[in-house]
Amino acid sequence: MPMDLKVVLVEPLYQGNVGSVARAMKNFGFSDLVLVNPCKLEIEARAMSSHAWDLLENATVVSSLSDAIEDSSIVIGTTGVSGLKFDEHLRMPAFSPGEVKKRLSGVDGTVAVLFGREDQGFSREELRLCDMIMTIPTSEVYPVMNLSHAVAVVLYEMKNIEMGELPLADAFDVRLLHTHFAEVLDQINYPEHKKEKTKLMVKRIFGRACLLEREVQTLRGILRKIQQNLR
Amino acid sequence: MPMDLKVVLVEPLYQGNVGSVARAMKNFGFSDLVLVNPCKLEIEARAMSSHAWDLLENATVVSSLSDAIEDSSIVIGTTGVSGLKFDEHLRMPAFSPGEVKKRLSGVDGTVAVLFGREDQGFSREELRLCDMIMTIPTSEVYPVMNLSHAVAVVLYEMKNIEMGELPLADAFDVRLLHTHFAEVLDQINYPEHKKEKTKLMVKRIFGRACLLEREVQTLRGILRKIQQNLR
Repeated sequence: MPMDLKVVLVEPLYQGNVGSVARAMKNFGFSDLVLVNPCKLEIEARAMSSHAWDLLENATVVSSLSDAIEDSSIVIGTTGVSGLKFDEHLRMPAFSPGEVKKRLSGVDGTVAVLFGREDQGFSREELRLCDMIMTIPTSEVYPVMNLSHAVAVVLYEMKNIEMGELPLADAFDVRLLHTHFAEVLDQINYPEHKKEKTKLMVKRIFGRACLLEREVQTLRGILRKIQQNLR
Repeated sequence: MPMDLKVVLVEPLYQGNVGSVARAMKNFGFSDLVLVNPCKLEIEARAMSSHAWDLLENATVVSSLSDAIEDSSIVIGTTGVSGLKFDEHLRMPAFSPGEVKKRLSGVDGTVAVLFGREDQGFSREELRLCDMIMTIPTSEVYPVMNLSHAVAVVLYEMKNIEMGELPLADAFDVRLLHTHFAEVLDQINYPEHKKEKTKLMVKRIFGRACLLEREVQTLRGILRKIQQNLR
């Protein structure tokens, strides 16, 4: 069975790009498009979508990224190559589409692949919501890809992922795990100024591990034991 | 060393697509663009090429496909998925970009990747000039990709091909081999109505084999021996 994958465009600016994205999605057999605060979709979006106008019509429009991803077990943010060295947990490690494909092979769950604004990409807050960061390897001379080209390349890779038997943890349970972990940090008086960074690091580690349902339960069991012993 | 690869657009109809193709090429570190009888390239081409306008300015414009590929050791035609069963040697076997990548790994030579018209693709004569046919695996529901999306996906794969030590045969020598083979067919009174099909089949076999220089010499030696013995 192919992957249950949704494409999430965060505040796309140009309707032509949104139309082109819909076309690329349909070319590769995907149909679940979510738009966060999109630009107006009119004649140009329709023209560029060609025979994929139905995807635009059936797209889910939401006003916040959290709404877009709340039912997704794994949230993958697609970013351009960044030379920035700060915020390492925010953007690193970044996987190529081929590496993401390998990590997702054999599991079963809902995956959201996020693409940012054409000009500004994602905000820091949006990057925080991602479990995994994906970057298409591009030339250093001109790394900035057109939005719909990036979607086409990513879906070309994702198309061939075969889901397996192993159920990915529910998004809800993973959120509970992170809340639980945050509680423990509070209880052990973890330095306030390191908290956010550390929580993000843990999110990235669990994100790229593609946690299974039973693993989340076991991890929460460990955290519960720790909490019991702290009291 | 990365592959010496040129992108050949055969009679592209829309300048926006040509600009988008240039951008995708530069994103993946390619710069050699050849245009066969292109549409006019004006403001829209420039806008879509974004920071890759230099590729358009330096593009080689020719009036026939033969001129575009005459120095290429391997000519790869990119076609859409076709349900057509006739002309099997013309379109078959078709390789995915990943398969083409494997075949080209470890050799050294010039490769031309051809993309056809947005509406009509290639003519039969143009397909005959190809050594190998490549098709991007797409959904049966809507297989027709935007031209620049197809280029982006293909170059994403081709970017990572590592050339090796094995020199691909010169285009000129391969042409001599085929001429030589055609002569032999004439000399053995091969049925006239089968000749074209058979020559094409041989072209496809040698094409996907990515013949090396010394292999072409040996094959021509064999043909010479055959001819000597026929006299």
